[in-house]
Amino acid sequence: MARKGDLMTVRSDIKVVDATVRDGGLCNNFEFSDEFVRELYKTNIACGVDYMEFGYRASKKLFNESDFGKWKFCDEEAIRGIVGDNDSPMKISVMADVGRCDFKEDFIPKAESVIDLVRVACYIHQIPAALEMIEYFHSLGYETSCNIMAISQANESQIESALDMLGKSSVDIIYLVDSYGYFYPESAAELAKKYVEYGEKYGKIIGFHAHNNQNLAFANTIETMSYGVSYLDATASGMGRGAGNCAMELLLGFLKNPKYSLYALLTFIEKHMLPLKAQGVKWGFDIQYMITGLMNQHPREAMKFTSEGRTDYCNFYKFISDNE
Amino acid sequence: MARKGDLMTVRSDIKVVDATVRDGGLCNNFEFSDEFVRELYKTNIACGVDYMEFGYRASKKLFNESDFGKWKFCDEEAIRGIVGDNDSPMKISVMADVGRCDFKEDFIPKAESVIDLVRVACYIHQIPAALEMIEYFHSLGYETSCNIMAISQANESQIESALDMLGKSSVDIIYLVDSYGYFYPESAAELAKKYVEYGEKYGKIIGFHAHNNQNLAFANTIETMSYGVSYLDATASGMGRGAGNCAMELLLGFLKNPKYSLYALLTFIEKHMLPLKAQGVKWGFDIQYMITGLMNQHPREAMKFTSEGRTDYCNFYKFISDNE
Repeated sequence: MARKGDLMTVRSDIKVVDATVRDGGLCNNFEFSDEFVRELYKTNIACGVDYMEFGYRASKKLFNESDFGKWKFCDEEAIRGIVGDNDSPMKISVMADVGRCDFKEDFIPKAESVIDLVRVACYIHQIPAALEMIEYFHSLGYETSCNIMAISQANESQIESALDMLGKSSVDIIYLVDSYGYFYPESAAELAKKYVEYGEKYGKIIGFHAHNNQNLAFANTIETMSYGVSYLDATASGMGRGAGNCAMELLLGFLKNPKYSLYALLTFIEKHMLPLKAQGVKWGFDIQYMITGLMNQHPREAMKFTSEGRTDYCNFYKFISDNE
Repeated sequence: MARKGDLMTVRSDIKVVDATVRDGGLCNNFEFSDEFVRELYKTNIACGVDYMEFGYRASKKLFNESDFGKWKFCDEEAIRGIVGDNDSPMKISVMADVGRCDFKEDFIPKAESVIDLVRVACYIHQIPAALEMIEYFHSLGYETSCNIMAISQANESQIESALDMLGKSSVDIIYLVDSYGYFYPESAAELAKKYVEYGEKYGKIIGFHAHNNQNLAFANTIETMSYGVSYLDATASGMGRGAGNCAMELLLGFLKNPKYSLYALLTFIEKHMLPLKAQGVKWGFDIQYMITGLMNQHPREAMKFTSEGRTDYCNFYKFISDNE
């Protein structure tokens, strides 16, 4: 499969998705100030970002509202408190996790909602449950995506089955998600080609969501894009769980479409992201995340290592190697 | 041109070059303690690193010895003070800059020296001067490389002329050097293919030296490697001027040859690199370096911005854009 487009021109299928509040919320328990979220919303519009994800719509039966910031739940009123009727060209998304969302109770019809896109996140063995949710959201009038997480632990025949199942569904977008930051540009591109091949067969859009465990989140994003991935996730300063995500500033710097602009984001980073870091909110590339990425493991042990302020990387490497 | 090798196997032509003291020395005026350099030397041997570069051999007529740490000059005795006769499989290199090195006075024959490789750094218009040095070092018995810096500002016909001139010389290794951190994996790979094509024609080895301005140093290193680049520069914790280099820990984590090992490096990073950072020595990815990288400019303005403790990225972007 040849690359689509080149380094000089514009591809009109590209959409940039800001996931700062959603994936970054995993770093600070979703406790962003309204000012932060409002300024990010304005910044994203000024920068030409296509979608802004506000958080999860998590089950209030499973999660206690008082234990989290409001973007864990993304009530319609909370979003409207920031965006009003969202009189902008930017669309709004929320994420709904399979098994952690009361989807039949907690979503209203799209015609009454300010949300445009519902992204359904699942592991590969949960595709049937994801399909049920996708068809429901589709019937309510939403755009839908399926974000199959931890794909580096699935094998090729599972992935092909999943892509066939999703291909035959109503889903609009299928996401390749490198949850563990395991892929290299070469391996991410190989998998992206498979997704794009199925996407072309079934008329589905393909997206990519990176993690920065091996400092490859941006590289993998532009490499998979070059083979036809269209929806690109990024976050301000790369804020996201563990090693974080593809940095929005790098992605906007790369894209050639004049609708995208860096200026407002650079100011937002200075005024809002640097203070978060200074307050001690932790994310970004570090040795412990590199190690879990190399070993194709969930970052939870690396997050624990980080939160304990440890730097004995060699012990951690021995521990994670032994853990296999 | 097809990729050489794959993600599962070993390529015997790969050589890892540690440039921590040389490129990292640009961050701390070459003022490393002997303990640091000695521990790094032992670490590199334990990790299977193929070459360790100790610094520059700069002219003592142009540079005042008292203004710099000793690795700016790399006297034979200074290196021997660390490595003795270097009774190890690892080779020793130094860098000699065109126009900043008294090469006819300051180098002894290889038979009397502990140095194995002299890397000649030049801009593309200095190739004739580099060739004079290369032939001289070759006549003394050294391995030689030519590191053509700032190649992202040269045009294709200049690059082809330079590769022809070097192809016909005695040089052993020709380095593709992304001094400004301008390249994307796709563009770095395209240029690497050209270097490898000339290398195959003339029987020369090709190397790659990355900078991390767009957080792509590691990605570009493994991408160019996949198209036949053999000599790979890296530094502990990515220490190097401005945004730094390809991190050795990422590269060793990637390489599949069992001769390479991460353990000793992880301990070295904890014991020696974290303290350097804590002492305030500055390097690594940051927005200002991304901006000079995007604009294909020398990082000096970004280094000044960093040293002044500024964070007004938007002003910096406007300034650098205007500077063009």
